[in-house]
Amino acid sequence: MNGAQALLRTLVAGGVDACFMNPGTSEMHFVAALDDVPEMRPVLGLFEGVVTGAADGYARMAARPAAALLHLGPGLGNGIANLHNARRAASPVVAIVGDHATYHKPLDAPLESDIDALASNVSSWVRRSLKTSELPGDAAAAIAAAYGPPGQVATLIVPADVSWSKGAAPLEPRLPRAAPPVREEAITAAAAALRSEAPAAFLIGGDACSAENLARLGALAAATGARLLCETFPARLQRGAGRVAPERLAYLGEMASTQLDGLAHLVLVGAKSPVSFFAYPGKPSELVPAGCEVHSLCPPGEQVAAALEALTALLPEGTAEPAAPERPAPPAGGEIGAVELGLAVGALLPEEAVVVDEANVSGLFIPGATAGCPPHDWLTLTGGSIGMGLPLATGAAVASPGRRVLALEADGSAMYTAQALWTMAREQLDVTTVILANRSYAILNMELQRVGAAAGGERARRMLDLTGPELDFVHLAEAMGVPASRATTADELVDQLQAALFTPGPSLVEAVITR
Amino acid sequence: MNGAQALLRTLVAGGVDACFMNPGTSEMHFVAALDDVPEMRPVLGLFEGVVTGAADGYARMAARPAAALLHLGPGLGNGIANLHNARRAASPVVAIVGDHATYHKPLDAPLESDIDALASNVSSWVRRSLKTSELPGDAAAAIAAAYGPPGQVATLIVPADVSWSKGAAPLEPRLPRAAPPVREEAITAAAAALRSEAPAAFLIGGDACSAENLARLGALAAATGARLLCETFPARLQRGAGRVAPERLAYLGEMASTQLDGLAHLVLVGAKSPVSFFAYPGKPSELVPAGCEVHSLCPPGEQVAAALEALTALLPEGTAEPAAPERPAPPAGGEIGAVELGLAVGALLPEEAVVVDEANVSGLFIPGATAGCPPHDWLTLTGGSIGMGLPLATGAAVASPGRRVLALEADGSAMYTAQALWTMAREQLDVTTVILANRSYAILNMELQRVGAAAGGERARRMLDLTGPELDFVHLAEAMGVPASRATTADELVDQLQAALFTPGPSLVEAVITR
Repeated sequence: MNGAQALLRTLVAGGVDACFMNPGTSEMHFVAALDDVPEMRPVLGLFEGVVTGAADGYARMAARPAAALLHLGPGLGNGIANLHNARRAASPVVAIVGDHATYHKPLDAPLESDIDALASNVSSWVRRSLKTSELPGDAAAAIAAAYGPPGQVATLIVPADVSWSKGAAPLEPRLPRAAPPVREEAITAAAAALRSEAPAAFLIGGDACSAENLARLGALAAATGARLLCETFPARLQRGAGRVAPERLAYLGEMASTQLDGLAHLVLVGAKSPVSFFAYPGKPSELVPAGCEVHSLCPPGEQVAAALEALTALLPEGTAEPAAPERPAPPAGGEIGAVELGLAVGALLPEEAVVVDEANVSGLFIPGATAGCPPHDWLTLTGGSIGMGLPLATGAAVASPGRRVLALEADGSAMYTAQALWTMAREQLDVTTVILANRSYAILNMELQRVGAAAGGERARRMLDLTGPELDFVHLAEAMGVPASRATTADELVDQLQAALFTPGPSLVEAVITR
Repeated sequence: MNGAQALLRTLVAGGVDACFMNPGTSEMHFVAALDDVPEMRPVLGLFEGVVTGAADGYARMAARPAAALLHLGPGLGNGIANLHNARRAASPVVAIVGDHATYHKPLDAPLESDIDALASNVSSWVRRSLKTSELPGDAAAAIAAAYGPPGQVATLIVPADVSWSKGAAPLEPRLPRAAPPVREEAITAAAAALRSEAPAAFLIGGDACSAENLARLGALAAATGARLLCETFPARLQRGAGRVAPERLAYLGEMASTQLDGLAHLVLVGAKSPVSFFAYPGKPSELVPAGCEVHSLCPPGEQVAAALEALTALLPEGTAEPAAPERPAPPAGGEIGAVELGLAVGALLPEEAVVVDEANVSGLFIPGATAGCPPHDWLTLTGGSIGMGLPLATGAAVASPGRRVLALEADGSAMYTAQALWTMAREQLDVTTVILANRSYAILNMELQRVGAAAGGERARRMLDLTGPELDFVHLAEAMGVPASRATTADELVDQLQAALFTPGPSLVEAVITR
């Protein structure tokens, strides 16, 4: 069998049975092999950012890697932004990048570029496969690297002739290696800090945000009086009625500093020590207050559950008390603002929904308003690279049949990777997209002030507003086969969202925000 | 003045007075400074591939660099594909990439990534500016590097605090350095080859494709009997009635080999020795026939006009005879196929039009059908990274007020960077876009056969077709403020194209191709 066929079979044998792709000539043997390996589900994206973002969303929900098939350096380039988010989410992804045939590469043909340099920007593991007979082994190594722990982007570069030549045999990849054992000294140090009278908090991220680990953390917090904080942008936070709800650290450094103020101990569980998202003139970048001791109980990639259990054994018993906020009533009508958006989503979110949150400024009240909704998952913009929402929702839906995915998408961010709508339509995915149409890069208008830049005159403001012309997301969605409607009042929003959330297949609601 | 203000003033002083941008927080001081430097024209793109492709198109028409302002690694990543094309076009581009503040960088904040590695993929010159006082000098060096010759992508990485701190003074950049002098031995060697009786051809590219140099080359070809070939994907070919028309080398290696067959001498003028675009099993990658001697008269970046004049002095006199093909009549009706597309464009193309050609498979007959049109410029996909057409047209239109830009755009390629339509609408650019809607990655269906991959079953073919759902480009254009119409017959195509080409501002015609 040829390299591509063995590569596909090895992927499937390693549990990688979904492949998001935007292939080109160098990948044609991979594409041709799809009919030989029916266990692999191929999903076409019309742009590589869709492909890589979908692989991230898939990984966050399936907890195993999908493959992302990309074409040469430019294809990888187009996929970089969402691989960056995947890297920050510790999502396992097997990126497969086709390259020119080995003997063609030195000729500097038009599409030649330094793929390895690009890949190094987002990948913890990069390998160029140079022999057909070694391609299955390289693929198995890529799968293992992707699993981590922690999960990571593993990029396998596959020259066209390595794909098309015969002489490959598929492999059965080894299972992912276990996370490193719990470090006793880290457990005892954290226990001592939590037993002290001084104010303490957990700061959690990664695997610590699962419902099971949140229950453990809730019990520990109850036993010790420590607060339970969550990193600003968790990859996947399980939340809703009956679950322990951590307090998320604010995006704005000033607000995050206030949240951390007065702490003597900060215990990190699956999270890194907090820093501000950007630097601002005259403001600190590190958010931990002076005098606060930081304890890394369990860095990303270590076994959170085992660490929490070990910690529990050293501390008094406690009982987690999940907050029980009320689910809000739908908004009472009028125009749509951030509050009405929150109320509408809070009133309607279905059980077991998967919420993809790239709502940004106008979405400010949605997390609070949904805290009492039935249990659901919340996926956020881990790496800050906008344009992740619609692709992430696409991949999450592929990984989560039977669950409703709700993409909360700011208008500016939506425009980076709106092509994902077409894939949602083609695959008839149960994704409801709400566009938060405030007609502005609203966050940049805020940042323009925050960085200390002069208010900016008309020319500056024009670079941050999205009017002239206004975007019409109903037309945009319909152009790609997704039914869509526009809500200009809160009542319309509720009606349209209700229909969109409970009708099979994809749909889009453009919420026109006027305040 | 702060770094950003001095940066903008230095750019303008260096002739860089257009900036395509998709800024983020790190670039807010640059944006704020726009109101202080009214000579700079800022143009917003809703995606970075629009920004970089527009900078390429601008450079090809203005013959000087624009700036492309990008946000951190992910922003540069999104812009890589079209910077790749710019690099292959030898377009001068000053890419300015904002980065975290110098002291924030070690903290590994969410958006932190290795920008330098990304930049190295597409840039011949990369510098990270580390001091506000040195930023203007770094900008001046970037401008000089971008000019080349040959033109190149120069990437200047600007940390946020270098932008926002005070203490910078703008500079007057030095003029671009002259191209290296003509190499006498190259001239005499080429002259000897052309004086021989053996079959010879010029292969031209870059600056050799200007009308003036084509006239010189036409005279040389007439004097020596040498054929005049052009590289497959010239950055800017001046063509049309009254101009010397080179024969373009075919994209398919087999056809290009036939064109080159029998040559004893190939004289390169602004072009590289030809290689096939991709490798194919059992087919040669190098296209020069065995026994053919290759003479590099003038590599990219040397002075083409001077080299041609020196060569002319060594050879008998000749008179260029421009081909005078007839301009076609419009198609006679019926459905729209590749032939009808060619006839429609050939019948209607306005004088001094700028044609951006990303028409791919369905555009096969358009170059031939437009050979007798009034003089016009033809810009092609130099680097093979699809998604260049609409951005390139945007930038070309900014650089060419008063001229009609015609973007011939394959449907699959259009979907990579369709956001350019919004910029066309905002800036009210005179761009007519024709979408060649064959509902398929047609070139990949062809390549699937050519690489020797098995015909591919249904699963493979589904990865290469764009139906289910069909894309609606009329809705897509209207979503972004561009008036649009759909042509399903040749008569409709002619009527709609006529209206679109002669109405001010942007418009789009979706040509539904049925054969």
